[in-house]
Amino acid sequence: MTESVLDYMTRLGRAAREASRVTARATTAQKNNALLAAARALDAARAALLAANEQDLANGRTNGLDAALLDRLALTPARIDGMIEGLRQVASLPDPVGAIRDMSYRPSGIQVGKMRVPLGVIGIIYESRPNVTIDAASLCLKSGNATILRGGSEAIHSNRAVATCIQQGLAEAGLPPACVQVVETTDRAAVGALIAMPEFVDVIVPRGGKGLIERISRDARVPVIKHLDGICHVYVAAHAELDKAQRVAFNAKCHRYGICGAMETLLVDQCVAAEFLPKMAAQFRDKGVELRGCARTRAIVADVLEATEEDWHTEYLAAILSIRVVDGLDQAIEHINHYGSHHTDAIVTEHQGQARRFLAEVDSSSVMLNAPTCFADGFEYGLGAEIGISTDKLHARGPVGLEGLTCEKYVVIGDGHVRG
Amino acid sequence: MTESVLDYMTRLGRAAREASRVTARATTAQKNNALLAAARALDAARAALLAANEQDLANGRTNGLDAALLDRLALTPARIDGMIEGLRQVASLPDPVGAIRDMSYRPSGIQVGKMRVPLGVIGIIYESRPNVTIDAASLCLKSGNATILRGGSEAIHSNRAVATCIQQGLAEAGLPPACVQVVETTDRAAVGALIAMPEFVDVIVPRGGKGLIERISRDARVPVIKHLDGICHVYVAAHAELDKAQRVAFNAKCHRYGICGAMETLLVDQCVAAEFLPKMAAQFRDKGVELRGCARTRAIVADVLEATEEDWHTEYLAAILSIRVVDGLDQAIEHINHYGSHHTDAIVTEHQGQARRFLAEVDSSSVMLNAPTCFADGFEYGLGAEIGISTDKLHARGPVGLEGLTCEKYVVIGDGHVRG
Repeated sequence: MTESVLDYMTRLGRAAREASRVTARATTAQKNNALLAAARALDAARAALLAANEQDLANGRTNGLDAALLDRLALTPARIDGMIEGLRQVASLPDPVGAIRDMSYRPSGIQVGKMRVPLGVIGIIYESRPNVTIDAASLCLKSGNATILRGGSEAIHSNRAVATCIQQGLAEAGLPPACVQVVETTDRAAVGALIAMPEFVDVIVPRGGKGLIERISRDARVPVIKHLDGICHVYVAAHAELDKAQRVAFNAKCHRYGICGAMETLLVDQCVAAEFLPKMAAQFRDKGVELRGCARTRAIVADVLEATEEDWHTEYLAAILSIRVVDGLDQAIEHINHYGSHHTDAIVTEHQGQARRFLAEVDSSSVMLNAPTCFADGFEYGLGAEIGISTDKLHARGPVGLEGLTCEKYVVIGDGHVRG
Repeated sequence: MTESVLDYMTRLGRAAREASRVTARATTAQKNNALLAAARALDAARAALLAANEQDLANGRTNGLDAALLDRLALTPARIDGMIEGLRQVASLPDPVGAIRDMSYRPSGIQVGKMRVPLGVIGIIYESRPNVTIDAASLCLKSGNATILRGGSEAIHSNRAVATCIQQGLAEAGLPPACVQVVETTDRAAVGALIAMPEFVDVIVPRGGKGLIERISRDARVPVIKHLDGICHVYVAAHAELDKAQRVAFNAKCHRYGICGAMETLLVDQCVAAEFLPKMAAQFRDKGVELRGCARTRAIVADVLEATEEDWHTEYLAAILSIRVVDGLDQAIEHINHYGSHHTDAIVTEHQGQARRFLAEVDSSSVMLNAPTCFADGFEYGLGAEIGISTDKLHARGPVGLEGLTCEKYVVIGDGHVRG
């Protein structure tokens, strides 16, 4: 095309801003109709989706993508089922838009409250997995936002095919095509343009590796909802029931090694370490988890590698676990707030006072009591779906669902009252 | 001193981060004690405060500060009363920290809810007015945050004297001095350092002119809660009661010209323009407000200057008003969303359907019905006090009080449940 990438992105941005006025005032029924029609369109387009995906996979194999990347890229009948099911689930969620809370009279006579409203235009930048196209588009639409989706170039044919189904859904519901736009160029300059249009884009959600997210956060001229490290801890406290602690810690590490909520460091109170650690270590070893411990851990369990300062800072996302014996609650909280990534941290204890302090004082997006850190997930939390897990403190913190894609404005109602 | 500004600010930052752990777990009583003790200290230090302020005023006169700036800088007995009263009001506000909401059971057996917690360390950058030192410190402390305050160099003696009183309050309540730190150097590099320490500072709140705020937003490496333009509108709709409309519009413009909630553009529905505008214009002219209008306005009211495209974009903060006659609700909403600054906009109407649409579709931090835009204010909204008015969409929107200085984290409680 003769149009520059910048002109192209500006055109998408302007169209998205206009469409966001329409999505903001669309009725719940209209939004749900679009989602359900898109689900039907996906179901009808299975052959086309698989064919488009096969093109991407063939290109990927030619370009030497590794097995893990190819797997993430692949659409299967089951994954198409998942996308369809996801659309139906989002349609069934309550609509957050328009809810008014805390409306009360002020001494001046005016009533003041807050109304939940969409953010406006949301830019999503992601890699590989074509199902993100559906997840992101459906959550943004349901929350009344327009979306610009910029997927990885390796998934361009799959994303286009998915986008066609979304467009069909929008059309059936009488919504303009610009409510959901998929960036059609694979030129990298499109990302640079997307993150630098504050007049058209209200927030960027990058989904992908840490490198991508750091780069986007650094260069963006619009707010970014970001998800960086998940260095999660389980602290087995003095008053833990040890069988419960073992169950929780094992699940926290081994449910899946590669998720951000996986435990990376196990903290064990010195009061229970001698009793707890040998059994726990044996279970991890049976599972093939490499253990790295502090001196006190190594004095209790033989053949544990020495954990270095570096280990306490590391998100392994693998079958490796660091273990530290701590003096008590204070040291556990201090360790977590210092070395952790403020993502998700758990205590196992039956002691109410210690639990209360841990939950209040650990500065993480999720704090847990007698539950494994791997529960940190939008579906598990009842958000219906998540667009990502935020490690930011401002705006959305933790799994981000529909509410995180909205904000609140003040509503003031008077009857000709004036300020004195 | 031999310490570099960067080293000095890093030292403040580290101390603030440590103190933030203490403020986060401080009890409501302890925080209130500190606020009330600071109020007593201010009351006892009136002579010292006025003497320190006189030093700043003398320097200001020597340096040729204009009358408006000198006025903002001046402490008077009444302004000291105001600071004392402010501290007592903040002490009397409910403590937002620790509130848990929406705790519910999930199918897995875990309970999930949200707990309100402090942001951590808040950096405040402001100009001239010494009372900001008290406003900011008290709101940040009550919401469980540590604060670093960087006031204008022209107010350094006043701010130090105020800080002494705050320190006395902290000491009486047993809280560490680093809970509230006033930057002691007037070196401008201190600002650059403060906004680039994401490891120590969680959010920056700049209070001052647009230039200051834009510069800080551009350079900051931490999130900024910012307040830019207030281009506010009142739309007198077809079904407005015109006497009510006139009262509201007059108050919106004339309560105070210099506040961000002052009306800058009046939109009048074509159905009522001929009846409404002549009386309204006469009242504004009696008050000395200069009127600039569109062609239709000028056809109704004689001697109105022609409004240019530039006028619709302008925040006058002065006795100037632009007036446009619009075709109806759609054009009014379009004008506001296009030319406005998404701050505060009002409709005057008795028509329920039109009011509902205006409140939902105008994309501003405050939307008002039959009330003047000048009500946009933390005290008027019942926040008790405000640290500023946010024109951002993410996190806090509109007047920012205690809640805007906190965030929510997820709390998950199980009893040894695991993820399947």
